[in-house]
Amino acid sequence: MTRPLPQPETYESLRQRLEDRLGPKGILADEEGLAPYLRESRGLWTGWAPFMALPASTGEVAETVRLCREAGVAMVPQGGNTSRVAGSFSREQDGAILVNLKRMDRVLNIDPLDNSMTVEAGCVLQTVQEKAASVDRLFPLSLGAEGSCQIGGNIASNAGGIQVLRYGNMRDLVLGLEVVLPDGRVWNGLKSLRKDNTGYDLKHLFIAAEGTLGIITGATLKLFPLPKESVSLFIALTDLDGACRVLAKAQDATGGQIVGCELIPRIALDFALAEVADVRDPLSQPHEWYLLMKAAAGREDSGLREALEAMLAAAFEDELVTDATITASEGQSRALWRIREAIVEAQTAGGASIKHDISVPVSQVPAFIREANAAVSALVPGIRPYPYGHMGDGNVHYNLTQPEDMAPEDFLARQPEIQARVHDIALGLGGSISAEHGVGLTKLAEIQRITPAIELELMRDIKKTLDPDGLMNPGKIFEL
Amino acid sequence: MTRPLPQPETYESLRQRLEDRLGPKGILADEEGLAPYLRESRGLWTGWAPFMALPASTGEVAETVRLCREAGVAMVPQGGNTSRVAGSFSREQDGAILVNLKRMDRVLNIDPLDNSMTVEAGCVLQTVQEKAASVDRLFPLSLGAEGSCQIGGNIASNAGGIQVLRYGNMRDLVLGLEVVLPDGRVWNGLKSLRKDNTGYDLKHLFIAAEGTLGIITGATLKLFPLPKESVSLFIALTDLDGACRVLAKAQDATGGQIVGCELIPRIALDFALAEVADVRDPLSQPHEWYLLMKAAAGREDSGLREALEAMLAAAFEDELVTDATITASEGQSRALWRIREAIVEAQTAGGASIKHDISVPVSQVPAFIREANAAVSALVPGIRPYPYGHMGDGNVHYNLTQPEDMAPEDFLARQPEIQARVHDIALGLGGSISAEHGVGLTKLAEIQRITPAIELELMRDIKKTLDPDGLMNPGKIFEL
Repeated sequence: MTRPLPQPETYESLRQRLEDRLGPKGILADEEGLAPYLRESRGLWTGWAPFMALPASTGEVAETVRLCREAGVAMVPQGGNTSRVAGSFSREQDGAILVNLKRMDRVLNIDPLDNSMTVEAGCVLQTVQEKAASVDRLFPLSLGAEGSCQIGGNIASNAGGIQVLRYGNMRDLVLGLEVVLPDGRVWNGLKSLRKDNTGYDLKHLFIAAEGTLGIITGATLKLFPLPKESVSLFIALTDLDGACRVLAKAQDATGGQIVGCELIPRIALDFALAEVADVRDPLSQPHEWYLLMKAAAGREDSGLREALEAMLAAAFEDELVTDATITASEGQSRALWRIREAIVEAQTAGGASIKHDISVPVSQVPAFIREANAAVSALVPGIRPYPYGHMGDGNVHYNLTQPEDMAPEDFLARQPEIQARVHDIALGLGGSISAEHGVGLTKLAEIQRITPAIELELMRDIKKTLDPDGLMNPGKIFEL
Repeated sequence: MTRPLPQPETYESLRQRLEDRLGPKGILADEEGLAPYLRESRGLWTGWAPFMALPASTGEVAETVRLCREAGVAMVPQGGNTSRVAGSFSREQDGAILVNLKRMDRVLNIDPLDNSMTVEAGCVLQTVQEKAASVDRLFPLSLGAEGSCQIGGNIASNAGGIQVLRYGNMRDLVLGLEVVLPDGRVWNGLKSLRKDNTGYDLKHLFIAAEGTLGIITGATLKLFPLPKESVSLFIALTDLDGACRVLAKAQDATGGQIVGCELIPRIALDFALAEVADVRDPLSQPHEWYLLMKAAAGREDSGLREALEAMLAAAFEDELVTDATITASEGQSRALWRIREAIVEAQTAGGASIKHDISVPVSQVPAFIREANAAVSALVPGIRPYPYGHMGDGNVHYNLTQPEDMAPEDFLARQPEIQARVHDIALGLGGSISAEHGVGLTKLAEIQRITPAIELELMRDIKKTLDPDGLMNPGKIFEL
């Protein structure tokens, strides 16, 4: 759908009217101030917007949406602007204004007996975690950007991270939602109920819709008992094929108390050891594949460590595991998880990289990696697969580092071909090409290519029903 | 929306065409055979249908829907017909045929490493549970009708039951879904992925939609490690207000391993003791309020029992608990949970009853019961509140037994007034009037009365988008 772009006087009158309603703090229009909000999170592109609105309340968001709608101006909702798929990026061709939620950062309510917490959408994830911990509760969403990403963006993108195995995705942590619809009406669904079967579940419509169906302004979140004891393991696998069985054994041994289970290949550990100062190899010999696991129990005397030691002993006997270490302190645990962060940072040392965010059924992770490695090596001899990620959720960040003797631009030129091949292999195994990052702008074309027509039609029908003029986050997920 | 009812010859020609496609086993038209499928599950009303289609595959369901659509005949999808709200009841005024899924009862796949299982919609819940257990896995949905309800109906109604506290509602146990849309197209979303962010989540649209947006034909379900040790507790509370704190203490002590937490009032135990042969009072003295809890751990040596004994000792000291028993065997545990079944059966002995399926925030359960008891006692002096249910989920089956000296029909005549009062109290506390039973036909009017206009409009918009002719399960959730 191509809409004519608004004229400069339209923006000027909209800005005036918004400033009247939101006050001077509610508008950011100077070029320098706007710059960081127009940058795509990885710094790859710079977008455009005439100005940014910064509403400070749900009413102000509703007012902003109504005035934009009257003026025929599109909106790009923005939280912490940490999307990996340019989900909050504002393209010049859309002529949209930015609507940033950062001034709405209040914790409205926290109830430890109800295990729930109600916050405004602009709350930073880490603030939510800390506030929960202050009343002896856990808010379990945990991911790299937690110091700057906002809960509204986490919900709009259904964020994942490193504790999904035990606690689920962001979707599973939302009890209630408040949304300003594309026509400016406010839907207040801020309930904390565990059971509510009174018609269609509207909140799930907005979660993972990436701001294309409305602007999330608040949420009621699910809290959990704070774990009292945790143990981490760094396990060298005999081979990749045994990874799922080791995870299943650990789950059986602990009764499902594994919080996270990350797969790490030797190449990634090598890069981390070479590039990042505070990383050491936890084991004395190198191995091809590792699992990094964390288990947590709600009691201090739970026998978690003993259960995992027994599991490891059995896994040695079954020849699934060749070496392993199990932590005895918080400090040791932090050192192990530092490796997980370091492998992400270290990858750049290898030159250009092509990245994927694949998921497959958990039992198919080894098959996927084997098949994809063979396929990309056939396409680009010397390519260095660097696949790591959330094994426990079947989520592989199937990253590829360029061959040592290739020019970075030559490698990157092969991206469309490599990406299509990797995606097709994932789909062939019943997988997904976007496990936790969403579609945004960067996966728009691939989603059109691979999604069954019936799904695209259903999504488009819903979009047209709620946002007939296509004013909400244009170009994300699909072009109308 | 009033459609003219089809003529007899329309039904006859549709029946012929369906029989050609589905075979003789695919049609049930004789009056006696049809009778049980036309009865509302509690036997209150008898419905009408010219015949029932029994498709044996997804393709046959799609064919059935297409032919009905061509003929302009509505459809009532039916699983085990165990709805508490007449969700699969066929009203004469709709002129619909029944579409029963019972011939689609195959388990298509089970993968213990992936913790997933794919089944046809007509699988009986108990079969699903047993099949999972046969590979050392748990499918946790558990409810009274599990021996006859079908998984498709469980999904369409987002069933709850007694293990929601630990494992979630049916919605949380669905990884993928297959649905025949109102226009006969098949959406195959049978994926087992734990993470998939590629657009709007379509499956959540159909879960709890009560068959009004299409017919669920298959599902991929989430499995869990099978618990190896479980302990049940029967706790006499000092007073109702302490119930949430006792639950929170039990969750803290076990690290969130409480599977179910049921509230039982003395009147219900008294009725069960008087009416049901195999029930005994687990405690030596009567008390006003009880909690029945079950905790489960994945390991045999988990120290669960010791942790709960320590929790009880602390709760005695804090004067939250006056007496308690903790089970030492499976037999003892069964005896305790037999009480939970018996209180449901026994209620009829008190004469006519008026029932509710309320949820409120967990921390508000005591306030709700206190406020509702006062309100209904003011309306009908001598009324006997009989509130029990899933305390851990904030779900109270707020049932009311008639005064001893009142005619049952006089009591039942007060139902609309009492119900509205109870519902308003729940809503005032941020609650819901249908926690786990759905809307169906029986709550249709109340839902219209209490649901915010914006929610009704959004639901109606979605319904019209997917089922513009209103052929799918007419009259359930709303009249178009």
